[in-house]
Amino acid sequence: MAGKIITISREFGSGGRTIGREVAQRLGIPFYDKELVEQVALASGFAPDFVEEHGEHAPNRSRLSYAFSHQGVPGVMNGMSTADFLWSIQCRVIQQLADDGPCVIVGRNADYILKDRKDCLNVFIHADMELRADRIVRLYGESEKSPEARLQEKDKRRQINYQHYTGRTWGQANNYHLCLDSGTLGIDRCVELIVGLAK
Amino acid sequence: MAGKIITISREFGSGGRTIGREVAQRLGIPFYDKELVEQVALASGFAPDFVEEHGEHAPNRSRLSYAFSHQGVPGVMNGMSTADFLWSIQCRVIQQLADDGPCVIVGRNADYILKDRKDCLNVFIHADMELRADRIVRLYGESEKSPEARLQEKDKRRQINYQHYTGRTWGQANNYHLCLDSGTLGIDRCVELIVGLAK
Repeated sequence: MAGKIITISREFGSGGRTIGREVAQRLGIPFYDKELVEQVALASGFAPDFVEEHGEHAPNRSRLSYAFSHQGVPGVMNGMSTADFLWSIQCRVIQQLADDGPCVIVGRNADYILKDRKDCLNVFIHADMELRADRIVRLYGESEKSPEARLQEKDKRRQINYQHYTGRTWGQANNYHLCLDSGTLGIDRCVELIVGLAK
Repeated sequence: MAGKIITISREFGSGGRTIGREVAQRLGIPFYDKELVEQVALASGFAPDFVEEHGEHAPNRSRLSYAFSHQGVPGVMNGMSTADFLWSIQCRVIQQLADDGPCVIVGRNADYILKDRKDCLNVFIHADMELRADRIVRLYGESEKSPEARLQEKDKRRQINYQHYTGRTWGQANNYHLCLDSGTLGIDRCVELIVGLAK
């Protein structure tokens, strides 16, 4: 397999983003995470913070979501909810990035969006709750909620978003070519394995 | 991680058994698949074919299953169903094999049975339905049922058995340290990855 385009799905706090950045550096190819948010923001007209908040989270089916979609950008969103509009832009941006050449894309259901391509290596990174809790406190500091509650909330939102837009179950091995437990294997070993397969 | 004991869970037809055998040969450690069935048969008093048929399949809760358990081996099975009795023997045999030293164990929910050990590398092997269908026809020949129906039936039975005895979802990435798509990566590459991690 060529594995030119690497998609990395990850549990919050598993180190998936760090692994993706390192893999991209080692292979000398672009890395899309925050950069992807900026491109979707540019294409949609929404603020990057808004895209970041809603791009991987549970779709909001409230009346307000639709009201906003009509009143905010009349005509442009064609009656879609804000979440669905963002999804359609995200699909377009990710397909364009893949067309542009080899790269690493973190999150945003890229594994599903690019499912018809034969040149993808789809990776899922996960780790034990305890290790992830340690990691998010180290990286992002403490907050009012316990680290476990923060992890559960974020995981849940990603699960719902993935299920909603792909019809698949989040974290099911069959959706990926490679799933790695970064807690047991270690970040460096995960990077090596992915780089080895992508070469 | 040491990874001395390698458990391999696999979708039917994914080549997981072949991968396990090759890994064991390359590492020079025992391989337990049919050998495990024989040990469970010896310890339980059941015929190997019976153990093979029931060891990874959906537990049978029929009245006959209980009747057989009492009349067949009075006293010994302590009121357990045949499936639960087999499960208890299987747990004991697998724990004993792990205590004996490094080895490769295929199937039989060994990942769960050995979950409290720190020296295991738990692997899940899967592949696309189409590739698995081709493989089982090549290996086991045609039958009255379509290969897809045979795969679905076998997968379903393993799923139910795993869920019943472990409370976990079959094929969920979190249950394993490493999940590999043998169809895309190829059997040889899967062997190399596992051997590399176990060394």
